[in-house]
Amino acid sequence: MSKSETIKVAIQGIPGANHEIAARAYFENKNVEVVPCHTFQEVFDAMHNNPDVQGIMAIENTLVGSLLPNYTMLRESGFFIHGEHKLRIKHHLMALPGQSIEGIKEVHSHPMAIAQCEAFFKNYPHIKLIESEDTAYSAKYIAENQAKGMGAIASSLAARLYDLEIVERGIETNKHNYTRFLVIGQDDKIEKAELLEQNKINKSSIVFSLPHEEGSLSKVLTILAFYNINLTKIQSLPVVGIEWEYLFYIDVMYNDYERYLQSLDAIRPLCKKMRILGEYEACTTTQTTNGDTPKKEKLQNALLHI
Amino acid sequence: MSKSETIKVAIQGIPGANHEIAARAYFENKNVEVVPCHTFQEVFDAMHNNPDVQGIMAIENTLVGSLLPNYTMLRESGFFIHGEHKLRIKHHLMALPGQSIEGIKEVHSHPMAIAQCEAFFKNYPHIKLIESEDTAYSAKYIAENQAKGMGAIASSLAARLYDLEIVERGIETNKHNYTRFLVIGQDDKIEKAELLEQNKINKSSIVFSLPHEEGSLSKVLTILAFYNINLTKIQSLPVVGIEWEYLFYIDVMYNDYERYLQSLDAIRPLCKKMRILGEYEACTTTQTTNGDTPKKEKLQNALLHI
Repeated sequence: MSKSETIKVAIQGIPGANHEIAARAYFENKNVEVVPCHTFQEVFDAMHNNPDVQGIMAIENTLVGSLLPNYTMLRESGFFIHGEHKLRIKHHLMALPGQSIEGIKEVHSHPMAIAQCEAFFKNYPHIKLIESEDTAYSAKYIAENQAKGMGAIASSLAARLYDLEIVERGIETNKHNYTRFLVIGQDDKIEKAELLEQNKINKSSIVFSLPHEEGSLSKVLTILAFYNINLTKIQSLPVVGIEWEYLFYIDVMYNDYERYLQSLDAIRPLCKKMRILGEYEACTTTQTTNGDTPKKEKLQNALLHI
Repeated sequence: MSKSETIKVAIQGIPGANHEIAARAYFENKNVEVVPCHTFQEVFDAMHNNPDVQGIMAIENTLVGSLLPNYTMLRESGFFIHGEHKLRIKHHLMALPGQSIEGIKEVHSHPMAIAQCEAFFKNYPHIKLIESEDTAYSAKYIAENQAKGMGAIASSLAARLYDLEIVERGIETNKHNYTRFLVIGQDDKIEKAELLEQNKINKSSIVFSLPHEEGSLSKVLTILAFYNINLTKIQSLPVVGIEWEYLFYIDVMYNDYERYLQSLDAIRPLCKKMRILGEYEACTTTQTTNGDTPKKEKLQNALLHI
């Protein structure tokens, strides 16, 4: 893979958003052309309109849990998961160059980012916190309007892109703020065959529903355990249109791809509507966005056996 | 229970909100004094400040899935689940009496309600849709300001409370819009002993985490199945502060309370941090809020064996 290869990646948010950071880090060996989208639905639309576009989408966060609507959109889209990326979300306070925190009268950002930084601002009661559409958008607004006295909570990438100065780094209260992103695209059989040959595929995301029979979930999970398939995530979501019936989204990890295929054959007759959402290489590092040089930390992902 | 008994119930929303409908239906034999709260956190605060106050909280919806932050708030609050209620959410278009749909220029409501009724408004392109804080709040605003030409999407209770006329009933696109509410309060041992004596307790909500060992979830679920305990819901949520470790929230149903207690003894040594969030009577009817007289439909809840 030469860096000269360019790929298009649809992201939710404008340049400088965390989705862009995740996209560039995941495709670190390629030139990434970002396709900014307002909503996750627009990310899927962009992919439908142009088969060369891939997408990246946050799927869970350690503070708020799974982004449930994204599971439904992914399943209904017909696209596949090509990979995953894990990002430690750091929030920075930024403003026009030369401004001190005492000179900042109001700070704009996404409501989630504001909520995560409220404790920091308790020490600066002169600052008014104002909700906006997006973290990066608030940074862009300050730059475009040369808005003195205004600050934004956003990523270091946003500060760099919009020529803002970071006034205070890492102002979030809970430092354990990690987001897992999925890279999605067409079913690329050639790329997958290459990964399989290199023995790199070790994780799958699967969705199924279950018949109304006692113990049907425990049977499926027990069979997977018998085949030494590790469950790393389970998420139930209602089937829309059927009262209190659920779809189960599971993530599994394995060392032996053949054995994994056999386990699927073993559980398929016990499931309804089973579908593989993707088979890919597990992300074993967490990228921290503290500062300009992303730092990768080893993750103990393989130890999560549930 | 005589209707003269009055109880205080904290709800999220102002009078006329769906939480009030659920509260009055659940406590149909009592006089309900509603304590309106802006947020779910305020519901818990109201309960902490006054031990006589109970609370009611939406926990899952068939269109959007579980309300994940509410699980965390419930667990951290130390309160217990006393019961559950299921409501079919119907949205009505309402305005000042005597207004026709042609005379309505703008319609206000909560973004979720607007999203669920967008298809209906495609036939009325002259109407502008405007997002507001709350469905019932929009109805109240019209009444207080005698706002002609303005409509709200809200419940029939809101129409009645604020003297508005329903212009069009049931304008939501997807009719399978059900919300499950939990009734929460102090650990009331006396009330529970009564219910146990009447053999009415048949459902529990439990939270636990699991050690990092292969197949640990399948072991727990298999033991529950061996004890004829039916799993009706499973929800994983990250443990804040620990990377990619999960808490499991399960709902179980059973006919034999003693057998259920034995099954807990059997799984306890395999779980970490297990806690019973509540033991209560399952709701087997769904209340529809179409019109002024709530209609109850039989639910096939007991058939959900997963």
